[in-house]
Amino acid sequence: MRKVTVPLSDRTYSILIGTGILSEVAPRARALGIAGAIALVQDANVAGLYGGIVRESLEASGYRVVSITIPPGEGSKCLQQLGGLYDAFAAARLDRRSAVVAVGGGVVGDLAGFAAATYLRGIDFIQVPTTLLAQVDSSVGGKTGIDLEAGKNLVGAFHQPRLVLADLDTLTSLPERELVAGLAEVLKYGIILDPEFFEYLESNRDAVFNHQPETLAHLVARSCELKAQVVGKDERESGLRAILNYGHTIGHAVEAVAGYGRYLHGEAVAIGTVAAGKLSQRLAGLSDADAARIEALLRLYGCPVRLAEPLDEPSLFRAMQLDKKTRGDELRFVLARRIGDVYTVAVPASAVREALAVIAPLRNLAS
Amino acid sequence: MRKVTVPLSDRTYSILIGTGILSEVAPRARALGIAGAIALVQDANVAGLYGGIVRESLEASGYRVVSITIPPGEGSKCLQQLGGLYDAFAAARLDRRSAVVAVGGGVVGDLAGFAAATYLRGIDFIQVPTTLLAQVDSSVGGKTGIDLEAGKNLVGAFHQPRLVLADLDTLTSLPERELVAGLAEVLKYGIILDPEFFEYLESNRDAVFNHQPETLAHLVARSCELKAQVVGKDERESGLRAILNYGHTIGHAVEAVAGYGRYLHGEAVAIGTVAAGKLSQRLAGLSDADAARIEALLRLYGCPVRLAEPLDEPSLFRAMQLDKKTRGDELRFVLARRIGDVYTVAVPASAVREALAVIAPLRNLAS
Repeated sequence: MRKVTVPLSDRTYSILIGTGILSEVAPRARALGIAGAIALVQDANVAGLYGGIVRESLEASGYRVVSITIPPGEGSKCLQQLGGLYDAFAAARLDRRSAVVAVGGGVVGDLAGFAAATYLRGIDFIQVPTTLLAQVDSSVGGKTGIDLEAGKNLVGAFHQPRLVLADLDTLTSLPERELVAGLAEVLKYGIILDPEFFEYLESNRDAVFNHQPETLAHLVARSCELKAQVVGKDERESGLRAILNYGHTIGHAVEAVAGYGRYLHGEAVAIGTVAAGKLSQRLAGLSDADAARIEALLRLYGCPVRLAEPLDEPSLFRAMQLDKKTRGDELRFVLARRIGDVYTVAVPASAVREALAVIAPLRNLAS
Repeated sequence: MRKVTVPLSDRTYSILIGTGILSEVAPRARALGIAGAIALVQDANVAGLYGGIVRESLEASGYRVVSITIPPGEGSKCLQQLGGLYDAFAAARLDRRSAVVAVGGGVVGDLAGFAAATYLRGIDFIQVPTTLLAQVDSSVGGKTGIDLEAGKNLVGAFHQPRLVLADLDTLTSLPERELVAGLAEVLKYGIILDPEFFEYLESNRDAVFNHQPETLAHLVARSCELKAQVVGKDERESGLRAILNYGHTIGHAVEAVAGYGRYLHGEAVAIGTVAAGKLSQRLAGLSDADAARIEALLRLYGCPVRLAEPLDEPSLFRAMQLDKKTRGDELRFVLARRIGDVYTVAVPASAVREALAVIAPLRNLAS
């Protein structure tokens, strides 16, 4: 079992990464001093697969456990499901010694984490991420939240988990499309922070898709380490942390305009990463060779690099205006000078238009 | 103009107390570096009286202002109104340089403050409290939140305002019933923290009801100072801060069981304060003389000291179980050893029953 520490003074916590570790949740919760009832939040897909193991582990250890199952999919990251969790927490009489344990992907983690952040003005939260994306992204940094009609993640809180348990066995049940979407975020860490990790990814594609345990463990652990380094320096996203948004400004807009669910988050980020590469070539001096390596790596892992169908450009711009990096009318992007070296900067709309042309669907090129 | 500083390291802020200071909001916001659009949140009662002055001040200073008016009353502290604010913030394209300015009583402040705490994971918040209760209570400490069907303030966040402007002129338009309800919290500060202030209150009843400006300024400033001392030592309510809950355990239960709106918050707290006095006599050694002085002071200011009609005891107990001080099944109360000296302790149900008998409606005594 590997352990990555997220260094946040009195909110420091551990991410445990390994195989067959789901039943570790109960002894670890005890060790952290969690003494009240547990709300176990999971989506309907995961409940049957892993929820039972977690629940049994907790109950065997003497916890009163209330299971709450939400519908799978991004649509559940909404105010209505949040209200449902609040009501369930109240009915279960959770108190300040209670914890919320989220078993599932990013949707469950973000929603349940935000509910934990705000119920009784904040109770303990444990994450058991069961998708690659959740293991490498939302398990580090304490971002929780929900979507609005107007955009993704517009509402939320920073609420650090007390513990994260990333069981690699859960990835075997993950549809390949979701694995690939998670890999887009893994590749991002190489692109923005670690040329050596980028090379490792270039060389280990087959081991990843063969679920080679040591390779998967390294992917998850290194991704968490890299993100933890950034978050440790900028917990509240006042500056540095924005670099983790590489590929996300356009990625989020694509998700919103195409309609949530059309693209997986990681798919939209992969497409946004190609667009960010184009912007970086134009404005940050990214070499053509590096831009080509980035796109080649995305393709190697099967990530989409173009839109499947055209999206309305004014709608994409309106969606980008809602990006949290925006200041007034000024769009801001994370750009790469080279692989492993990025920064945040204001970008003119004309350059964004050019980048959007690069990710246009192929059939559009003929028109 | 008086100024009370709430000392919270990098979240330290000022409460300005005076007459005719509503238009101070714009220059102060500029001085704090607030550069984005402003969401002005107010209830329909206050919008006509004070919202205009605040809005004009902000617009004259170059801010883009979006006014959002919510229905008056506790019923607005709900998930649905919260969703309405979020949607309005998104439509107004608030960004991280924006601020939410809340003009009104505790409902507006709690709701708008929670929206500010969670929109984009937290944007700036300025409070312009226009009721005595909001000026002496919610303006200090950063508690924001909404109610659930199951109980009051069950959901929320700690989010310190950047500035509070308490204009005493706004109290002249306050119905006397609301003034009295606010006074219940003022009296509380004397009871729990400051015997001298308690005596001042015993001697200055007429000046208060004649709206004598210096007296009102002292009441508000001293209340804020006393609360600020407590909050400065325990921002996140991990211990000491619970003493501010004196009278609130039963008070909140009374509000919930009678149906929100039946009692004003301060009225329920006044009744809860009498019950807490009884518990304190029984369990904390509060003298009969001190208990009598407390009840006499509440009566002097016209606060209710008995329930208007009987409430179902099991329902009151169930509501108390949801109190945030509760641990498991154990009810915890703030009790007074003497005026100015309180502490938090577990209390047996039998003693709570006895205290509930004391606040039973008079007509019940005959039955």
